[in-house]
Amino acid sequence: MSKTPEVLISEVGPRDGLQSVKATMPTADKLRWIDALVAAGLREIEVGSFVPAKLLPQMADVVDVVCHALRHDGLTVMALVPNRRGAEAALAAGVHKITLPVSASEAHSLANVRRTREQMVDELREVNALRRDTAPGVAMEVGLSTAFGCTLQGTVDEDDVIRLAVACVEAGVDEVGLSDTTGMANPAQVRRLFRRLRAEIGERAGAAHMHNTRGLGLANCLAAFDADVRTFDASLGGLGGCPYAPGASGNVVTEDLVFMFEAMGVPTGIDLSQLIAARQPLQAGLPGEPVYGMTPEAGLPKGWNPA
Amino acid sequence: MSKTPEVLISEVGPRDGLQSVKATMPTADKLRWIDALVAAGLREIEVGSFVPAKLLPQMADVVDVVCHALRHDGLTVMALVPNRRGAEAALAAGVHKITLPVSASEAHSLANVRRTREQMVDELREVNALRRDTAPGVAMEVGLSTAFGCTLQGTVDEDDVIRLAVACVEAGVDEVGLSDTTGMANPAQVRRLFRRLRAEIGERAGAAHMHNTRGLGLANCLAAFDADVRTFDASLGGLGGCPYAPGASGNVVTEDLVFMFEAMGVPTGIDLSQLIAARQPLQAGLPGEPVYGMTPEAGLPKGWNPA
Repeated sequence: MSKTPEVLISEVGPRDGLQSVKATMPTADKLRWIDALVAAGLREIEVGSFVPAKLLPQMADVVDVVCHALRHDGLTVMALVPNRRGAEAALAAGVHKITLPVSASEAHSLANVRRTREQMVDELREVNALRRDTAPGVAMEVGLSTAFGCTLQGTVDEDDVIRLAVACVEAGVDEVGLSDTTGMANPAQVRRLFRRLRAEIGERAGAAHMHNTRGLGLANCLAAFDADVRTFDASLGGLGGCPYAPGASGNVVTEDLVFMFEAMGVPTGIDLSQLIAARQPLQAGLPGEPVYGMTPEAGLPKGWNPA
Repeated sequence: MSKTPEVLISEVGPRDGLQSVKATMPTADKLRWIDALVAAGLREIEVGSFVPAKLLPQMADVVDVVCHALRHDGLTVMALVPNRRGAEAALAAGVHKITLPVSASEAHSLANVRRTREQMVDELREVNALRRDTAPGVAMEVGLSTAFGCTLQGTVDEDDVIRLAVACVEAGVDEVGLSDTTGMANPAQVRRLFRRLRAEIGERAGAAHMHNTRGLGLANCLAAFDADVRTFDASLGGLGGCPYAPGASGNVVTEDLVFMFEAMGVPTGIDLSQLIAARQPLQAGLPGEPVYGMTPEAGLPKGWNPA
């Protein structure tokens, strides 16, 4: 792993994955899993969500998990916060980066956070003020969910997506990414929308968060890469989805995504064998939960040596 | 389906798929399956292989299957022939197109057809002479297997692939495609190699035959599309692989490939709902055999109407 990474793989499994399954992973397994991910070379992990434990008991230990993750030098410790209250707790815990869910689809926004898009942008302003006053070094990003289509409302207008991204930046957000929450994106759309996003908000254009619902996860990541995206969300073993978007399933599998980039000669900074080994604590902590991934199943190709 | 197709999806399931599974599909089910594929809009089907029945009992009824397929106006009926003897039988049966397997890897060539690459090019010359004399209207294509890597020998030199493609054209072949028999291809390599192929042999550059072994099947098809490939092999339900390439598995799933192109606004001429319905005769004829496909599992997105 001597080459300088050209892409950042942001592991979302400990948040997006774990909050989508019914079982709660014991804290000790979460910590082992995060350690294994760091050992494999992951440099950014979304370790949890600051939401009330009665809503998401899987995240009740988020402060402990953050605390532990912060011991890893060089790791960006990220957490999801749905609102100002969550942001307060996350900033107090010492995270490096907070991410807020803003839906491009009004129907999904109401279902997911029980607020309109406009109300969420107001919330962003409040969170930004809080951050400015209490933790100015912390980064703040938004993933625009249902940016490529919504299982509730159907088509999502591309102009709406871009307008909302601009509103997020005006509210103080550092980076705005686009999420295919519902697995409806296609490569032509991904290229078009990320190019528009970059044209509008420049370097504040953020991560591609793709799903593999209809098998297009990696093709859509490739399309995003072509459109100069360099940060990609993925989930080890493909764990996760969105419980509020019916039919949505299947985050892009980190193992397969890393295989694609490394095979292309695009360094990720991640050791694929160690990444596959990081499935062990995940499976130990969630016995019986299905994990996915074609590369772990097929094994690495003969003579695999991307560096 | 009013739009003129921009890509040709060449269904290889009845040959590549069926010869890779142990069970033999009854002839009546094969015919129903082919009819269902045609009803969905498929315009080219590799319906079988002209090999001795004692080697591949799954293909013993190939003449009957060709006969039946020929009744469909507008359908290109294709068959695999490993040698001159197979070509004689295929031409006698009246196929529109024959395809010959030539391996880019010497090790795979010896394992798959028990001949060197050079011997296979000699065979092409003989088959071409036969065709010229007996059936000049029949097209002749080669899929260069293991073009992107080989599970037996590892890396396959790209210059070798291009030289072999040129030799095939000089031997009289109309179209030379590239096959990722072993699921080792990556999108950068696919773009590079197909661009080189087109630069060398122009319009004789043929189909992309990708596998989904490590999840990159659709990303590689997208990369090939970017490199001006317009013919794509795929297999309904992802049936198939190569029994002589250990670890190889998973043809690209026709349903997911068609979903990708149609979603991108690239017309395939295929009705996706009818294509998914064509899984019924496949499954009826091969009870217990696993079929794959994310799109059939997830269903079509809300408001799906690509035309």
